[in-house]
Amino acid sequence: MTKAAVCTIGDEILIGQIVDTNSSAIASALEAAGVRVTRMVSISDKRDDIIGSLRKLLSENDIVITTGGLGPTKDDITKDALAELSGSTRYIENAEQKEIVCEILHSRGLDILDNNLAQAMVPETARVILNRLGTAPIMVFRIGESVLYSLPGVPHEALGALPEVIEDIKAGFPLSHILHRTVMTFGMAESALSKLLEPWEDALPEDMHLAYLPSMLTGVRLRLSLYGSGAEGESERLENELTKLKGLLGDMMYSEQDDTLENALGKLLLRLGKTVSAAESCTGGEIAHLFTSVSGSSAYFLGSVTSYAVSVKEKVLGVPSEVIEKHGVVSAEVAEAMAIGVRKLLGSDFSVATTGLSGPSGDGINPVGTVWIAVDGPLGPRSRRFNYHNDRKRNIERFSSAALNFLRLYIISAL
Amino acid sequence: MTKAAVCTIGDEILIGQIVDTNSSAIASALEAAGVRVTRMVSISDKRDDIIGSLRKLLSENDIVITTGGLGPTKDDITKDALAELSGSTRYIENAEQKEIVCEILHSRGLDILDNNLAQAMVPETARVILNRLGTAPIMVFRIGESVLYSLPGVPHEALGALPEVIEDIKAGFPLSHILHRTVMTFGMAESALSKLLEPWEDALPEDMHLAYLPSMLTGVRLRLSLYGSGAEGESERLENELTKLKGLLGDMMYSEQDDTLENALGKLLLRLGKTVSAAESCTGGEIAHLFTSVSGSSAYFLGSVTSYAVSVKEKVLGVPSEVIEKHGVVSAEVAEAMAIGVRKLLGSDFSVATTGLSGPSGDGINPVGTVWIAVDGPLGPRSRRFNYHNDRKRNIERFSSAALNFLRLYIISAL
Repeated sequence: MTKAAVCTIGDEILIGQIVDTNSSAIASALEAAGVRVTRMVSISDKRDDIIGSLRKLLSENDIVITTGGLGPTKDDITKDALAELSGSTRYIENAEQKEIVCEILHSRGLDILDNNLAQAMVPETARVILNRLGTAPIMVFRIGESVLYSLPGVPHEALGALPEVIEDIKAGFPLSHILHRTVMTFGMAESALSKLLEPWEDALPEDMHLAYLPSMLTGVRLRLSLYGSGAEGESERLENELTKLKGLLGDMMYSEQDDTLENALGKLLLRLGKTVSAAESCTGGEIAHLFTSVSGSSAYFLGSVTSYAVSVKEKVLGVPSEVIEKHGVVSAEVAEAMAIGVRKLLGSDFSVATTGLSGPSGDGINPVGTVWIAVDGPLGPRSRRFNYHNDRKRNIERFSSAALNFLRLYIISAL
Repeated sequence: MTKAAVCTIGDEILIGQIVDTNSSAIASALEAAGVRVTRMVSISDKRDDIIGSLRKLLSENDIVITTGGLGPTKDDITKDALAELSGSTRYIENAEQKEIVCEILHSRGLDILDNNLAQAMVPETARVILNRLGTAPIMVFRIGESVLYSLPGVPHEALGALPEVIEDIKAGFPLSHILHRTVMTFGMAESALSKLLEPWEDALPEDMHLAYLPSMLTGVRLRLSLYGSGAEGESERLENELTKLKGLLGDMMYSEQDDTLENALGKLLLRLGKTVSAAESCTGGEIAHLFTSVSGSSAYFLGSVTSYAVSVKEKVLGVPSEVIEKHGVVSAEVAEAMAIGVRKLLGSDFSVATTGLSGPSGDGINPVGTVWIAVDGPLGPRSRRFNYHNDRKRNIERFSSAALNFLRLYIISAL
């Protein structure tokens, strides 16, 4: 199997100022392409350290991907180190990258300085993949038997270049023929899900494998992979198993892509031409934030009321004070009254509401982590209690995800 | 200077399933204690790889901190590898950790299995620091001239143990005597701030240094450090320079601790006994989410209205439709009407409102990244336009931070 190492270069990582997210994204893309990542390393901006570490990684791997150290300031010495490592004696200008450099500086209203133009100069030993999102080009070096890809450190530039780098790797290395299909699920924990799927999973052909990738916010992502030879019929065999998997998952599955709940819910509402609103107590605005984080959400999300104080529940949402007194703020009755109230106030087709205890303290009756979620719509109000066991921040996130999923199931049942 | 390496162990990092946040937190704590981190490495759960990599890191560093590979399943072989590396021939039980293991499983309603109890067994060569948040203890090994700390991989367990580990390092190694003071600022970019502070910074004594740690959400964190000898008067000298720095910063400084804007604003409101509400268009609930992410925020945050649709601005917040027609949704007039409307509706002392374009598309007049922020309170409404140049997600975050800061400055001016 083709082996790779990922190396991030820069003091800002070693002093803990920045969390390295590039390595994880690169490793994930390599793994999906059938390349095994043997090691990730973060090193300083010191020349000896860069050359020594890269030489060792190159001797142990077919591919080394670096990020960082390509900026215009004097700290950034990766390019010089790579020139030395690859035996380059001179730099040549890449005209296309130079044009991009000028365009970017111009669009930001900045003068073009010598050290900016130097970004488009590359060692003669380097092959260039253009960086359309920044000034430093991606450089590809053949060093001994191995290939080194040098990517910029700015995450959105590194990730922007990644698909082209992966294509380059696919063209240059004998990779396994891997097919992947992803489905997103919500509502069942990884352990319970694996129990449900066990009989089907055990009967999978030898060349197929199911991976569980749980996330608190988006549920369990399932990736079904076929490690094949490119033979005919492999794609159909994968699709057949996927169909069986979908049958087992039922309405727990919310997307057949690598998607988020808020995105999938948005597509559903767009398709139906329906609108939604939210009334939030314990989630404090997070549900509205999730809805509006999706581009184009103004087509279906009308707005929300964060009713943190009891007076706002009563005055703005019209929750009767007797209901609050009789059942308590954290109750099915209050959740439903909030959902009904906000749907009426904002005039939406559907609504969702939350009332609960995100922490750190309970209310003397319900423990921290208790939430009542309600929805309202053409079928009338529905509500359900959920219990989680996290700190405040994570409870708010889980309550919000659970609310989006509860709404999704209600909308589906109303179809 | 004492040198350290950080090593995370586990296949889940190498396949890109998990972003390694432990290394960054550990590096940051080491750096603050005066230890230089030379390298971070992520390796697989393979015995040879663990032993080979750790041996090399130990030969090059005074301290090695590992996280991960200590779970109860058969993948987790770090403890065995460390036993071999440290020349241990037998395991002994740590009674206190055993008690914690039993307590934790009991509180989760789980049976106590043999592999759980095995968590409390440690190589005889290990000194134990208790893990009060999980089942695997922190193990300390002296190997040759160096010391290895083995921490669990679960982030909140690793971070929970970190202060004790740092104390242990401080007691065992000759560290520089470092004093730090942190202040948080908002409203000026790093480059402009550094220009403002340059004369003062240039005049700092040789043993003092100012570090700029910019963050989009919390502004620029400034850390003033004194690298001393423990001599008398060092602390006073640092305080003197801090006083000068605070004078230069004026009301850009919002906290003298490592704090967030929403937390500092919460403390201010609590101290004044005043309440606040929000009306959000383009920030879509994020301001409410920031307010309510602070424990105890119900004492001052009454609630908010997310008025994504124009109809909600008119019907719920009472923004006159003529104002919207005349000035457009993204305008000072609409922002102020929203702030006035929500303050009246929810009955709060202060309010804050946003209307703008987070992206991806503009409105034909204003470019993406334009936001009008308004506040209302005892001094009457105030508003200001800000322009940012980011993608949707980051614009929403920056708009929200700018709004919190605008409100903070208004409240201060109303005192």
